[in-house]
Amino acid sequence: MSKPSVPQGTRDFSPAVVSKRQYILNTLKTIFELYGFQPLETPAMENLVTLTGKYGEEGDRLIFKILNNGINAQNDDAKAKMTAEWEKMLQKPHSSPIITERALRYDLTIPFARYVVMHQNDIAFPFRRYQMQPVWRGDRPANGRYREFWQCDADVVGSTSLINEAELLCIYQGAFHKLQIPVSVKINSRKLLAALADLCGMPEKLIDITVALDKLDKIGWIGVAKELQERGISEEGIWQIEKVINVTGDNNGKLAAYADIMQHSAIGMEGINEVSKTLAYYSTLADGSWQGSIDVDISLARGLNYYTGVIVEVVCTSDKVTMGSIGGGGRYDDLTGLFGLKGLSGVGVSFGIDRIYDVMTQMEVWPEQLASGAKIMILNFGGENETYALKVMQQLRNAGLAAEIYPDAAKFDKQMKYANKRAMAYVILPGDEEREKGLISLKNFSTGEQKMISVEDAVKLITQ
Amino acid sequence: MSKPSVPQGTRDFSPAVVSKRQYILNTLKTIFELYGFQPLETPAMENLVTLTGKYGEEGDRLIFKILNNGINAQNDDAKAKMTAEWEKMLQKPHSSPIITERALRYDLTIPFARYVVMHQNDIAFPFRRYQMQPVWRGDRPANGRYREFWQCDADVVGSTSLINEAELLCIYQGAFHKLQIPVSVKINSRKLLAALADLCGMPEKLIDITVALDKLDKIGWIGVAKELQERGISEEGIWQIEKVINVTGDNNGKLAAYADIMQHSAIGMEGINEVSKTLAYYSTLADGSWQGSIDVDISLARGLNYYTGVIVEVVCTSDKVTMGSIGGGGRYDDLTGLFGLKGLSGVGVSFGIDRIYDVMTQMEVWPEQLASGAKIMILNFGGENETYALKVMQQLRNAGLAAEIYPDAAKFDKQMKYANKRAMAYVILPGDEEREKGLISLKNFSTGEQKMISVEDAVKLITQ
Repeated sequence: MSKPSVPQGTRDFSPAVVSKRQYILNTLKTIFELYGFQPLETPAMENLVTLTGKYGEEGDRLIFKILNNGINAQNDDAKAKMTAEWEKMLQKPHSSPIITERALRYDLTIPFARYVVMHQNDIAFPFRRYQMQPVWRGDRPANGRYREFWQCDADVVGSTSLINEAELLCIYQGAFHKLQIPVSVKINSRKLLAALADLCGMPEKLIDITVALDKLDKIGWIGVAKELQERGISEEGIWQIEKVINVTGDNNGKLAAYADIMQHSAIGMEGINEVSKTLAYYSTLADGSWQGSIDVDISLARGLNYYTGVIVEVVCTSDKVTMGSIGGGGRYDDLTGLFGLKGLSGVGVSFGIDRIYDVMTQMEVWPEQLASGAKIMILNFGGENETYALKVMQQLRNAGLAAEIYPDAAKFDKQMKYANKRAMAYVILPGDEEREKGLISLKNFSTGEQKMISVEDAVKLITQ
Repeated sequence: MSKPSVPQGTRDFSPAVVSKRQYILNTLKTIFELYGFQPLETPAMENLVTLTGKYGEEGDRLIFKILNNGINAQNDDAKAKMTAEWEKMLQKPHSSPIITERALRYDLTIPFARYVVMHQNDIAFPFRRYQMQPVWRGDRPANGRYREFWQCDADVVGSTSLINEAELLCIYQGAFHKLQIPVSVKINSRKLLAALADLCGMPEKLIDITVALDKLDKIGWIGVAKELQERGISEEGIWQIEKVINVTGDNNGKLAAYADIMQHSAIGMEGINEVSKTLAYYSTLADGSWQGSIDVDISLARGLNYYTGVIVEVVCTSDKVTMGSIGGGGRYDDLTGLFGLKGLSGVGVSFGIDRIYDVMTQMEVWPEQLASGAKIMILNFGGENETYALKVMQQLRNAGLAAEIYPDAAKFDKQMKYANKRAMAYVILPGDEEREKGLISLKNFSTGEQKMISVEDAVKLITQ
């Protein structure tokens, strides 16, 4: 028998990890619901036709397809037919519904768009939904890149109001404040990027400019300028872009400078106006205690082509942490159009759960009470003492305290070793004396202190 | 464009449904943790070799296999090789790791066993884990039978103490009490079934007797007797079984009668002893407020062959409901042996989430506060009133109340229609007068009552 394992790029989450991940998810869930977002869950499997063609050629290749059930050859005819299908697939991968017609969810956005179109008559628009579920991608596994990982999205569809953008900024700030992660939320608009292309006199080069600018953090301006040149942007154009990139100051100062430079670009002024209005709404809504900042950054591009308006990205600003973005999103004007429902604008943000987990671990900001499982272990001395121990245990649980008994009257050392390995907070020793007096001996496992008290007093002490 | 849909046998869970399902899952999670069980999550994908051969021939056929990524034919040699693999698969389905080497989780038990074997050196035994995740089966979809559905399991491995069995009975009773579902938890032991086969003088017929007896509820004793005959049980044997089946009385009475009949069967006396001891532990642990019963039922068989000791099954006893079992489990002596770790005994129970959901819906026992999303909607009258409304909204959220604003200053009727469709509990109307006075008009959406009060008073009123 070979040693059992999990598939490459997938993970078991052991109890301590699950508790921490649940802490992140519950924190987000609480905030989403406070802001009126409703939970949605879609199936892991989608019809393959729902997914193909939505993520580009590379994406199509990375989708995990599910083999149809009941594939076998009862006779030569059936065998010949199946083999012909197979050869078709070898030419154009995954093109045969006879071999595969289902696939694993690749993200939460396309299933959400599919859901909205299917349920458009039942949904009260604007529809605010959040969704926290795993997705699967056949990427080559690498450090921090998995084949199964969770996404966590919040979107509003059916409203063009910039209040939505501002509320999503509040959700970011509120969530990361609660998680104790200091952040900068960068904000830009696709329209400002379009205006940059206009400034260069090359509106058709929007994508090239976007792709090059996106690398500013990594390769610096010199690198970006080189790439812009390679992508056919004129000297004059590159100079115009440099002028915009070099604008410094606070958010309002930057926006004023952009307005000056872009005054003749209708789309540029629209973008500036949208970002300004979003920031104004945000400052009305913002809580003074949030420590994160919102920072206008015209080099922010966001890869996905479906964004059409405001775009945002979250980075952790702690110097203890080196990590790419831990969240991002933006406005898209026609996502549901893919499934035949035109003219529904939406805006959404995403939280990178795995990266947030890593950041919290690097920063050591996990709440103390997250140790998983029972905090209190009751030693089992067998016989009448076991019966007494069982009753004590139920009293503790009735008081809301997680407690467990060692299920066998094993040797004292063995039981204590277990308590130690499980990192119990307290151990209770119910021996003859305790049982006769109707008390318990409570041992604080970290201080070693032990005293004989009533169960009621123990509950008080532990819940303090 | 064809109308979008989800694959047959899978479901979208809309917000109201997610909230209810989360209520069930959270109730179970709370109880599991109170009893010292720790959460575990395993990947949706397992290596195919981990799953095949574990669920019988039928099970193997129903496992969803994932097509390997990057299947294509760069040249004629590669094409010939792939086609040869394919033809091998057609003869013996899913035997080619070149075509498929991963599959979707079929249950939570095998992944759990795999996890325990992989992590045996890190785990503190006895290991109590719970796991709530979806599983996938290529069954023909039918009423109540899905291709993607959730399982929810709690198991203890590494202890043979019957305290574990009794604690799992408590978890069932506590959970169904909390969920307001009246239940009977039937209890039996595989050893009593083995003793029945002994009584017939046909120990080799254990499986036949088990399969026939399992149908007692459906086809009655006459039907079972006929099937026993067809399966080669002697007249004398059938008469012995009938005698045992006909025993009535309370649990202790039944067990005493079985002991009388089975006194010469060592395994029978062992089974009786185990069930008695489990019931004794249970009565020490049980909470007087739980309304469910525990009922000895010697016809209880449970299909899965890996059970070796006490077995249990939960049925809802409300006459409003017709539903099969909503939970079940038992002791298995060698599950991890499948992956090379021998001699680790375990016991576990499972909750049927979909069926519990259906029972709660039929019985109408959902808690009132489950309506999903924001309870309070703030009307948007635009301009200064919008700014005022935003500030009011954040005050409500800071007080822990879910609130949302209509994001556009749309027509009054449109906004009210939205509030209605979302079943808001309260609507807040912040107009000129309210803003000038620093108050709000709060309308109770069910009574229609409306009054102008401060935000603080509104919070008090709503949280009452």
